[in-house]
Order: sequence, then C-alpha cells, then structure tokens
Amino acid sequence: MPPTTPPSTLPPMKDLTTENITENVHLVNSQCTDPRLRYLLHRIVTHLHELCLETRLSTEEWSAGVKFLTEIGQISDDLRHEMILLSDTLGVSSLVDAINHPRKPPATEGTVLGPFHTHDAEDMSHGAVLHSDPDATKLLVLANIKDCDGNPVDGVKVDVWEGDSKGFYDVQNPNRAGPDGRGVLRSDENGEFFFQAIVPVPYPIPMDGPVGKMLAALGRHPNRPGHVHFMLDKPGYDLLITALYPRGDPYETSDPVFGVKESLVVDLTTVEDEEMAKKYGVKVGTKLLKHDFVLLTEPQARDLRKKNAIEAMEKQGRKVVFHNDLPIPAESS
Amino acid sequence: MPPTTPPSTLPPMKDLTTENITENVHLVNSQCTDPRLRYLLHRIVTHLHELCLETRLSTEEWSAGVKFLTEIGQISDDLRHEMILLSDTLGVSSLVDAINHPRKPPATEGTVLGPFHTHDAEDMSHGAVLHSDPDATKLLVLANIKDCDGNPVDGVKVDVWEGDSKGFYDVQNPNRAGPDGRGVLRSDENGEFFFQAIVPVPYPIPMDGPVGKMLAALGRHPNRPGHVHFMLDKPGYDLLITALYPRGDPYETSDPVFGVKESLVVDLTTVEDEEMAKKYGVKVGTKLLKHDFVLLTEPQARDLRKKNAIEAMEKQGRKVVFHNDLPIPAESS
Repeated sequence: MPPTTPPSTLPPMKDLTTENITENVHLVNSQCTDPRLRYLLHRIVTHLHELCLETRLSTEEWSAGVKFLTEIGQISDDLRHEMILLSDTLGVSSLVDAINHPRKPPATEGTVLGPFHTHDAEDMSHGAVLHSDPDATKLLVLANIKDCDGNPVDGVKVDVWEGDSKGFYDVQNPNRAGPDGRGVLRSDENGEFFFQAIVPVPYPIPMDGPVGKMLAALGRHPNRPGHVHFMLDKPGYDLLITALYPRGDPYETSDPVFGVKESLVVDLTTVEDEEMAKKYGVKVGTKLLKHDFVLLTEPQARDLRKKNAIEAMEKQGRKVVFHNDLPIPAESS
Repeated sequence: MPPTTPPSTLPPMKDLTTENITENVHLVNSQCTDPRLRYLLHRIVTHLHELCLETRLSTEEWSAGVKFLTEIGQISDDLRHEMILLSDTLGVSSLVDAINHPRKPPATEGTVLGPFHTHDAEDMSHGAVLHSDPDATKLLVLANIKDCDGNPVDGVKVDVWEGDSKGFYDVQNPNRAGPDGRGVLRSDENGEFFFQAIVPVPYPIPMDGPVGKMLAALGRHPNRPGHVHFMLDKPGYDLLITALYPRGDPYETSDPVFGVKESLVVDLTTVEDEEMAKKYGVKVGTKLLKHDFVLLTEPQARDLRKKNAIEAMEKQGRKVVFHNDLPIPAESS
C-alpha cells in the first residue's frame, strides 16, 4: 500500500545542487517543533556538509566512514562502549565534560568518565580494601571534600574505581564474577574518606576494535597514564567526575583520551609514622595519596555554564535564550 | 603487564582546558604519516569540537548521540544499511555524490544510490520484464546513452532496480528467494536499451529503526517519491548512479533523502502505435518512459572534480596539492 502520510506543507525544494543542498536539508528540518533539537540539527548538518565540501570527501572515504561507524556499534554491548571510546580518543568526551562541569579555582577539575565505570560497585566502609590483586603495590588514599568556602562536605557518595597491577579493569576479565577494584564510600562529618587502593599503572585502551585500528592508522599509542577514578555526588553540589594521576608516568603528557590535567597530577608520599599507620590500618612504608577535593554547588556550576554559553553564542554573533537551561539562538525560540 | 609501547616523542600536552583541548588533539593526530588522513582528521576534530562548543552540548545530549549512533550499527547487517540511511536523510549522500560525480550540461545528473542496491541482479536481454508483480502498472523504459558530443555509447553495463506496486523492494521481503525488480542490461551499438518495468510508486524509507525515530522527532515524513534506479558503468566513463522520477508525485518536492533533481523528473507518455508496441513487445496503451542519458568521460569528470576542489580549498584560504587525486592543503604535503 502506498504511504498515506500527507506531503509536507513546507516551501518545496528541488533542483538540488552542491550549492543549495544544505539549505534544503535545513528547510526540511525546520519543521521540528523542539527549538533545541532544531538548533542541534542545524549545527550538525552545517558541520557535516562543510566537512564534505572542504575536504571533497571521496565516495571511498565516505564508505570507509560508514563502515567504521557501523562496526563501532556492532562491537558494542552492555560492557563494551566503543562509541564512547571514539568520543574519548577524539577529545570530545573531555570537551563535553569541561562544558557541562565548568570549574573555577579552588574547585577540583573534572575529567573523562571513561568506559570502565559500572553501577554494581558495593558499599565499603572507610579503610576498606578496594582491590584483591595480590601483586599490586598497596596505596592508602586519604582524602577530604570541601566546598569553595572551605567547609567540609559530609555524606558525599564517593564512587571509586581503578585497574589492577596488570593494567586491567575487572570488566575486562571474561570470567568476572563480580565487582573488583571498585567501591562506594561516604564522606564523614569532617568531609573525610579513606580506603586502601593500589598504585595505578598505565594501561592500553582496547585496541582490538575499530577505534584501535584508527589509533594505529594515526600513529598514536594507546596507553593511558595510571590513575584512580573518583565520582563525587551529593544533592545540591555539581557532580564531580574526576581522576588522580600519580606524577612521573611515561604517558602523562600523551594520554590518548585527553584526561590528564596538571591539577590532577599528584605526588605520592609514604606513611611514615606508627601512629598514622595504626590509625588507618596499614603498615609503615605504605604508599600514600593525600588529596583535597573541592566541590562547586549546583547554583555555582549553573551560573558558570550559563555565563560560558552566553559568551560562546555571542562569539557566533547570536543572541541567546535558554530552553530547559540549554542555549538556543534567540531567533529560533 | 604494563604496556611497553614507547611514549610519544611529540611536544608534551597537559593542562587541558576548553580552550586548548582541540589544539592538543590536533597535536597528537599530527603524528599520522598519511597527509590525506591527517587532513581529514584535522577537519573532523575541528568540526566536532566546534559543534560541542557552539551548542554547549549537554552530557545528556552527548549520551543520546552515543546511543543513537551505536544503535544504528547494531540494527545494520548485510541487507540493512542504517548508517547509509542516516547519511541519506541528512543530505550527506547526495552531497558526496555531487562532489565525486560533478556534472555539467549536457551530462545527466546523478543522485543517491540508496540502501536497496544489490549485487545479485541477473543479466537480462532487451525487452525483458523486470518485475514479477502482477498488481503493477506496466511501464516500457526506452533509453539511449550518449557522450557529451552526442555519440552513442555501446556496451554500457546498465544496472536497474525499483520497488514493487506496494512500495517495497525485494530485499525488504523476509522470504526473498532471489532478485526481483532488478536486472542488468547492456546498451547496444546505438547506445540503446529497453525493458519492461512498472510505474513506480512512492514508498516510506524504513521507519522501525533509529533513523525513523530521528525523522519522527524532526516532524519529517518518510516518503520517497516513486522512481526507477539506474547505474551506468563503462570503463573510460565516469560512473553514473542516478534515478528517474515520474512527474506529479506528491512527495516530489520533499524527498526525505534529497534525491530529486529537476532534470531527473520525467513525463511519462503512452505507447500509441501498433508498430512501436510490436517492436518492443508490449500492448498499445502501455505507459512509456523515454530518456536520453549523457555520460561524462573519466578525464572530463576528473578535471571537473579537480577544478571544484581547488575552488573549495581556495575559499578556505588554503593552497592545494593533490595526493592520490584528492586535495590536501599544500602545507601538510
């Protein structure tokens, strides 16, 4: 049965050429009633078409791109997120984090979530051992959480995860029985939390899929500098997804996912005295990572996002209005 | 085992911010030894980052985009090409065809290949019946092929395909036993070919996948105006992928894949006299599509592509050199 949908009531398009096809796509998409989606599509189509036009994209390159993106979807499942890995390795994830979670001193900077966060980490009490890895170098993590005025923030949900001494996360183990190298703590009334982790080591991002082939074609190495991930979450505060990188890693200045920031590179020390060792349940000589996290409140982050959005839109010569807290050009509202 | 790849010898990057992340991604990708791939990545990363920055892409929108693209890969297989459908519905396929197969009068314009071409169509002799559909209105297609000087071109491989009277292609039939509604002919010494097709009807592009959801969200209808596909291929001539659209279709001016061009909209007539009916093996009164196709030679198309490429690069203020016939900025060669 031929389709019965009524034809468009838009001004007709025809006579498509390299010159007016972009206009015609915008015309058809202008039917969208959601002004934010309409704006996004306008920009997506503009950039895609400019990319093709300025590079004179060949049919073979277009085919290779279609195949590449299709294979990324096909290799992905609940535990493997190849499209996120693509976003990470092109710097997009880091950029989106910076846009959505802007920081100003003294607030702790964020970084990429990465593909290895899970939702099955168990609650841990302070001092708990994160990792069962017997070959690892133990690391006492001793941290506190403050707001920008220096007040401790209690009751923050602290989600931590890291790879093992071989550079693998638990989800990369095909025989994974349950979470390992991950856990969830709460900051106490002084904003403090502590746990026993391991000294992180560098590890390659997965190279057996399409993104690995891309990195190889670009002559890029896949090795992330060692780090421990932190996600700090409390209602009223802007979500902080970050990581700490012990200084001196050989890949510190060439991270394939653009996660390292100078403020997140930390110096490890050592537990020197008996009293401290006893207090935190570790041996004297254990490696020590001490760190202060500083959170922005939700209103502080929202104001900063809004200010940055207005500046970015003005750079394009656009007046901005906000739709569900997201910017759209004033003319499309 | 920690990775053993030597760290990059590039200038180090660090202190990533919203301001310098794009530069750092370019720096890492500049290791690529293929100048064309290096140029493509430079433009892809630039556009992706500009898109995020100017729209202030939210984390939720980024996630929705990752999910959307992943699902497109997951629904795709040998017979379903959802990523091509995405490219089609954003006007990218039509644009890439126009870039790669530029035309100037009198050459026949190209259009999108679409997702329904297959490689299993059988050879047919002139006059053969393309379609087994008993409900369709028969259509005699009578065509010839010339070069730009008006000389007939013989021995052109003519691949034709079309949907049935219900708007479906054979590959959409889950019980497909073999090709139907498709075939391959050769132009004769006069550049002519003819076959019995059916009057094409409009049909919706597949709406049960992610691209269908996108069109619905944009308020776009999915209906392509009826058409017959042609692929004309002969060594020495530029490949012509095109289609003819009988005039008057309700979706003629709102094609969801931007395939219609004024020069490809044709007027159907009728086989009026006995002699013609007899010659082509049809009844008087049968619908008739007569059309002249005009091919560019390979050198003509290559020259036109090159000229357009130089103009496009100059618009960006770039001097161009060619690498495997594709443009790259002179500074990156």
